[in-house]
Amino acid sequence: MTNEVRIIALGGLGEIGKNLMLVESGADVIAIDCGLAFPEEDMPGIDLVLPDVSYLVERKDQLRAIVLTHGHEDHVGALPYVLSHVNVPVYGTKLTLGLARRKLDEEFEGEVDFHIVKPRDVVTFGCIQVEFFRVTHSVSDSVGLILYTPAGIIVHTGDFKLDQTPVDGEPTDYFKLAEVGDKGVLALLSDSTHADRPGYTPSERVVGESLAQVFQKAKGRIIVTTFASNVPRIQQVIDVSHDFNRKVCVVGRSMETVVEVATNMGYLRVPLGTLIDVGDLGKYPQAKVVVLSTGSQGEPLSALARMSLGDHRKVDIIEGDLVIMAASPVPGNETMVSRVVDNLFRRGATVIYTPESLVHVSGHASQEEQKMMLNLTRPRFFIPVHGEYRHLILHARLAVATGVPPANVLIGENGTIFRLTPDQGEIVGMVQTRAVLIDGAGVGEIGEGVLKERKTLGEAGAVFVSCVVSRETGALAIAPTIRTSGFTRSEPGETLLTEVAGKLKDYFKDVSQEAIRRKDLLEQDIANMVQRYVRNETGRKPAVLCSVSVL
Amino acid sequence: MTNEVRIIALGGLGEIGKNLMLVESGADVIAIDCGLAFPEEDMPGIDLVLPDVSYLVERKDQLRAIVLTHGHEDHVGALPYVLSHVNVPVYGTKLTLGLARRKLDEEFEGEVDFHIVKPRDVVTFGCIQVEFFRVTHSVSDSVGLILYTPAGIIVHTGDFKLDQTPVDGEPTDYFKLAEVGDKGVLALLSDSTHADRPGYTPSERVVGESLAQVFQKAKGRIIVTTFASNVPRIQQVIDVSHDFNRKVCVVGRSMETVVEVATNMGYLRVPLGTLIDVGDLGKYPQAKVVVLSTGSQGEPLSALARMSLGDHRKVDIIEGDLVIMAASPVPGNETMVSRVVDNLFRRGATVIYTPESLVHVSGHASQEEQKMMLNLTRPRFFIPVHGEYRHLILHARLAVATGVPPANVLIGENGTIFRLTPDQGEIVGMVQTRAVLIDGAGVGEIGEGVLKERKTLGEAGAVFVSCVVSRETGALAIAPTIRTSGFTRSEPGETLLTEVAGKLKDYFKDVSQEAIRRKDLLEQDIANMVQRYVRNETGRKPAVLCSVSVL
Repeated sequence: MTNEVRIIALGGLGEIGKNLMLVESGADVIAIDCGLAFPEEDMPGIDLVLPDVSYLVERKDQLRAIVLTHGHEDHVGALPYVLSHVNVPVYGTKLTLGLARRKLDEEFEGEVDFHIVKPRDVVTFGCIQVEFFRVTHSVSDSVGLILYTPAGIIVHTGDFKLDQTPVDGEPTDYFKLAEVGDKGVLALLSDSTHADRPGYTPSERVVGESLAQVFQKAKGRIIVTTFASNVPRIQQVIDVSHDFNRKVCVVGRSMETVVEVATNMGYLRVPLGTLIDVGDLGKYPQAKVVVLSTGSQGEPLSALARMSLGDHRKVDIIEGDLVIMAASPVPGNETMVSRVVDNLFRRGATVIYTPESLVHVSGHASQEEQKMMLNLTRPRFFIPVHGEYRHLILHARLAVATGVPPANVLIGENGTIFRLTPDQGEIVGMVQTRAVLIDGAGVGEIGEGVLKERKTLGEAGAVFVSCVVSRETGALAIAPTIRTSGFTRSEPGETLLTEVAGKLKDYFKDVSQEAIRRKDLLEQDIANMVQRYVRNETGRKPAVLCSVSVL
Repeated sequence: MTNEVRIIALGGLGEIGKNLMLVESGADVIAIDCGLAFPEEDMPGIDLVLPDVSYLVERKDQLRAIVLTHGHEDHVGALPYVLSHVNVPVYGTKLTLGLARRKLDEEFEGEVDFHIVKPRDVVTFGCIQVEFFRVTHSVSDSVGLILYTPAGIIVHTGDFKLDQTPVDGEPTDYFKLAEVGDKGVLALLSDSTHADRPGYTPSERVVGESLAQVFQKAKGRIIVTTFASNVPRIQQVIDVSHDFNRKVCVVGRSMETVVEVATNMGYLRVPLGTLIDVGDLGKYPQAKVVVLSTGSQGEPLSALARMSLGDHRKVDIIEGDLVIMAASPVPGNETMVSRVVDNLFRRGATVIYTPESLVHVSGHASQEEQKMMLNLTRPRFFIPVHGEYRHLILHARLAVATGVPPANVLIGENGTIFRLTPDQGEIVGMVQTRAVLIDGAGVGEIGEGVLKERKTLGEAGAVFVSCVVSRETGALAIAPTIRTSGFTRSEPGETLLTEVAGKLKDYFKDVSQEAIRRKDLLEQDIANMVQRYVRNETGRKPAVLCSVSVL
């Protein structure tokens, strides 16, 4: 039997191991998480980014299961796509599978072999045993994994923080971590997201206290928005509303679904009669209601964004409304959020949105918690995961500060193959992995080339030139037509296009019959000529496409 | 003589009054500041946004001067454009005019009538007298304005903070403010940028102290980046470098220019022998040099971004380099900055970039300073300026908290006409004002329509259909050609385009000679048909343009 374990991060984009990791030993492979990424700023028109499954498909026969740590989109959102390639059993806690189920019901046709696990459950997949342990995070029922492998014990934290007073009363399982730390941990894979934040991340309870202070003073209606998946936060909104005798009305599809799923499964405790239908909102005094809404990221189609524009079918912002943004903008969403906040103020609402108001805390560990995790598990090797490159480096330094030898810190990226044996840890190579970009119905069709073209088009527009030429003479049969988009609509623009038409006429005075036979080259040459001319005249660089029809 | 004053904010974009304001009384008009804005995220391809000068041009004969508060781009950057329409005298402090001069030399051909003023200077423009008073801000030699008008005294703070220990030793002129506050201020126009930040903005000195702590521990080379215009910050970098016996090498065009201009004018005191040429960098031990670089916003063409990619002609990042990001990302630039930081770490540098490291402080007042300004001036009317809408509202509340009657707070937007008399303050209308969008060499040519087209192109690409038809039969003379950009390069895409070609052939079976006479309608109809087909097949909505050539 081999005593070697290989760990491979397979997400195609951004943070290492966030979306999908593989653990291989001998003939057994398990996948950890199965999520999607959101497009970066230089991916215009892309809706979602999926992990590359090609390596997974190669290992199809050895793949025993997909094991989930928690129910966030970036950890479960690619299940429909991945299961359609490798339909293996899926293990996760009750709420995690409940959240994953929603998506599968919509997008996956096959049967899914779901296995509900509880913290401290141990499941055997060939030579790899997986024990689940409770961690605290911004969605209920999150777990980390202890992998008992032929090489040794590997701890994977999943996304975590060390909330000492979690809303559901279930702190991170320090006992289990201490136990394996005492036995000897070969490697720790730990969440690096906030490795640049000193101190501790405040407890989720802090948000409840801040909300209570705000509710105490509020005289009119209160609208709260947060991430739909943040069940503990939703619980606190409901609790505080109940304490202050306010009814709660849930608005926005994803928020409605999560409240339903989490309530049915027992993760959300809603006092009887607290929830009201949006249609009944008008029946209660403004001081007696709370609207719990989607849109915390300023998403243009979300309920809150629509309200901020007076565009929501059922809820209008009223002068004196108090809006609480109980979420911080995910990097890249700052401008969208600011616009929604401005528009809410414009409609007469007061908005609480600054970090100082403490109506949001992160679900990820800060430096002191990351160090605590390192000290509890005392790993021989350390692999920082879930974070941008800067976070991995800073997390690595924390590991070294707690006593991990610098040579035992392994920093990789998506595709990296880490090899662990009882004595050794090293990076042994890379697996080909790429981001699968989704735009509309076409899966995986959009590559670098198309993205680059979109960038040019988006920044400078397009000029299309269409010429009809005679095969015999090589001359233009009729005047060329020029169409533009995103380029100009003004008079100087029209003048320029007339000049371009003139240039084309000149051009065709010299075209040989030979040239016309190589139409693709001819079209490219014309496009280059037009592009040069436009750039010289305007300083702009639109995409220029040319079509030559030969009669 | 009239006792009425009208104040009009004329920037075309974003923050009210940031770029350009007018003060009119009787036959006299003065402009305050003359800056440009940077494009928002939904303005692809736009380089700069200029204020609308049409109203200014109408008032040409009454316009006495442009009065500048400080030398930042958003306050002086539109001078070449505006002066080319209305060439009037320009008043500002020495450094402000020095910074403005740079740009004018490059972009303006006429003579500029510059008047250097000092704080406490009073200049008379017809019935309006302007007194300049010192304020502290993130560029040296900043001033606010006291306008003595027939309606009363109006105080305009410019951009300010109340730095009690400014680097140049010149605090805000509390005495002058107290004096006019005691005389009676009709209206205060005050910087709202940070109306959502509680407390005080830390002194610029704090940055010097943080830098000293970092320098104390640094063993290798130090690279510092900040805004080129932040002369006090540059002074501190030079001072700390000198204290720690390090030579300073300035890299990046705008940084080089500002250091030169500010040194020549006496705003920057550089100890002899401290500056070294970038070519001599290799001659000194790494522990003895500091590189002062542009690129604090992650701008892709900046010196630091190039270094982070190993792409700078003269400076390579060396393992062990310490990079200090002495600036915070301007909203919208967060992702660019993060990428540069990641890439610097990748090359082996350590980067100091978090807010906790206090290597950057803002140049704008926080709430306590804004309230102090209100209490010093005790205005009868309050007009919050320089800020997004949310900031204006929050600033208005601070004014009310300090005793301004709510009815005396006037919240406007760009274009708003404020009318003030000795007894009254009100909003009396709007001036037509728009953003003049600059892309390449064409000034003011880009409108909403073109931006919308660019958005479609950027997100979904373009399909260009070219058909040649016979005038007599209405039938296709040859097979249609289809070209795409930013749409697809894959096999399913090619198949789709073949199907589109088939659809076009079908389409032309039914086209009447009549239809061919209305070519524009025909082209639009074909484009719509193709667009529908593509959307149904792929869920994508590329721009579709059609050109029909009639033989």
